[in-house]
Amino acid sequence: MKPILQSPLLDRRFLLSSMATLSLLAVALRSPLAQAQVQAQAQRDPLPSWNEGATKAAIIDFVARVTTQDGPTFVPIEQRIATFDNDGTLWVEQPMYVQLAFALDRVKALAPMHLEWKEKQPFAAVLEGDLKAVAASGEKGLAELVAVTHAGMTTAEFEKIVVDWLATARDRRFQRPYTELVYQPMLELLAYLRVNGFKTFIVSGGGIEFMRPWTARIYGVPPEQVVGSSIKTRFEMRDSTPVLFRLPEVNFIDDKAGKPIGINEHIGRRPIAAFGNSDGDLEMLQWTTLGASGARFGLIVHHTDAEREYAYDRHSNFGRLDVALDAATVNRWTVVDMKKDWKRIFAFD
Amino acid sequence: MKPILQSPLLDRRFLLSSMATLSLLAVALRSPLAQAQVQAQAQRDPLPSWNEGATKAAIIDFVARVTTQDGPTFVPIEQRIATFDNDGTLWVEQPMYVQLAFALDRVKALAPMHLEWKEKQPFAAVLEGDLKAVAASGEKGLAELVAVTHAGMTTAEFEKIVVDWLATARDRRFQRPYTELVYQPMLELLAYLRVNGFKTFIVSGGGIEFMRPWTARIYGVPPEQVVGSSIKTRFEMRDSTPVLFRLPEVNFIDDKAGKPIGINEHIGRRPIAAFGNSDGDLEMLQWTTLGASGARFGLIVHHTDAEREYAYDRHSNFGRLDVALDAATVNRWTVVDMKKDWKRIFAFD
Repeated sequence: MKPILQSPLLDRRFLLSSMATLSLLAVALRSPLAQAQVQAQAQRDPLPSWNEGATKAAIIDFVARVTTQDGPTFVPIEQRIATFDNDGTLWVEQPMYVQLAFALDRVKALAPMHLEWKEKQPFAAVLEGDLKAVAASGEKGLAELVAVTHAGMTTAEFEKIVVDWLATARDRRFQRPYTELVYQPMLELLAYLRVNGFKTFIVSGGGIEFMRPWTARIYGVPPEQVVGSSIKTRFEMRDSTPVLFRLPEVNFIDDKAGKPIGINEHIGRRPIAAFGNSDGDLEMLQWTTLGASGARFGLIVHHTDAEREYAYDRHSNFGRLDVALDAATVNRWTVVDMKKDWKRIFAFD
Repeated sequence: MKPILQSPLLDRRFLLSSMATLSLLAVALRSPLAQAQVQAQAQRDPLPSWNEGATKAAIIDFVARVTTQDGPTFVPIEQRIATFDNDGTLWVEQPMYVQLAFALDRVKALAPMHLEWKEKQPFAAVLEGDLKAVAASGEKGLAELVAVTHAGMTTAEFEKIVVDWLATARDRRFQRPYTELVYQPMLELLAYLRVNGFKTFIVSGGGIEFMRPWTARIYGVPPEQVVGSSIKTRFEMRDSTPVLFRLPEVNFIDDKAGKPIGINEHIGRRPIAAFGNSDGDLEMLQWTTLGASGARFGLIVHHTDAEREYAYDRHSNFGRLDVALDAATVNRWTVVDMKKDWKRIFAFD
């Protein structure tokens, strides 16, 4: 039985990854993602930001089992599908989801054109920085915020708004662009899986079009491998130019039971590995690991490090981890103790 | 300026295709797809089933323009997205869509358990083979047919039903399995594009889960690169086993203006080449070719060969080609004259 890493010529995704790494190196030699990919190729320690222990061993053992040719749990390359939640699994989700910070900033940016917002909820609350009042506006308030910040423009216009915002917005605590608040151990894990023939997907409750403009650069995940929540769009011809216009109407919520549904719709086969951090990922982990033959891997990132990042689980407003934490024990999913298992959290640590 | 085919080592999708071909050869050396892929690799004539002429020249010219490095219309590999309609573009859609034949056969297979269908429309019409009466039952009738033939089972059960049916069903005219009624020139085109770094997607009005079980084997297009119409599913845990249960409720219709919407949702970027054959493909071709900078390619398969296949356009019940045929002239899309442009239609010709 020969691990596939020793026969790279037989492995088209290995080659794909190698070439991807080379071309990536050329343009972004020093990016955290490039570093992670170089490390993954090096084959000595593909996960240098992970401390030695049961968690790291479980990951490496799983990858060895599915890539060992002629082994009893070998998985053909085309079936090596891995899905990753985004908020709290790949990047920081405290003190609020990044996309919510984006929406609040958009309201502030648009406010000069909407003087009536000073006396209209939930906008007044946003402008006053009163997050409790924003939350109190409930689903109806949230829908209004989404409508004015995420709809009413073409898909191309929205992409530009997202890219421009990410270029200047900074997280308050870390004073960094949000795209630097990605977990270095998870970048290494993504790269490690890809080098071993996995196709990596993001499956997030976040907006699919909020993520796609930057996931290739930051995570190495191209737009067509991003699954997320969406609003409806309308196709229009404007002076012989086709556009997709974003409507203030929910199309799909890719959270909880929506995750297996989104996975089925976009990917069309069951993943063999899934990575999450909250109750929103429970059904994705069930769909990936239960009632299926062959090797399966489920992992939950448990935020236990208030010093370097955040510590939260059962009572958090964002990324609550309660039922899924109990399910992890029952189903033998691997639970990352961030404080103990991660040598460093961010590339800038 | 050097065509990318002369520097394959720089081209990760070229490598991917090469490896895919090699592994495919190992398992299916003599399949039509494998033959097409070998031919595409050979670099002499990658499109042997296409007659010489303006149509073939337009295809080859487009591919050369987007793959010529340092050329003015070079397109980076990750942006080489090509979308293909299925019915009438990749396989036969006359005398009716294959999926409709499937639905009618399913009604017949299920009829012994539904004696009441003998007196209930549209089922009675199906059982009597009265297609006009089926059509007369309208959208409501069609929805009832879809409900009993496509819903009420898990996704895994539906996949098995489709695979089993395709293994035994035969087209009446050609007396062949439907999966042999695929156009050899289009298989060659798919392979030729992939060898040149394109990622090929199917974007069909047909059911996404009706296509996915066989598109990898027949077209070389994996499940995650298939976009289609869908019904809603519900996630359920059954005795600790997760299932997705298919509901009798439309989720998405991937036709006409739905095609750019589906492309945006699944792929997240605009194709640079699109291939269709009917008015249902008009908006996909617009979205692909109009108002975008750089080289773009639109192609319509015009069915002009009643002898070897079928001849139909503006007045056909299935695959009507009317507005899109006029639009092809205006927008300079390439129109395949099947009779003139295709040396052979099927692999068995």
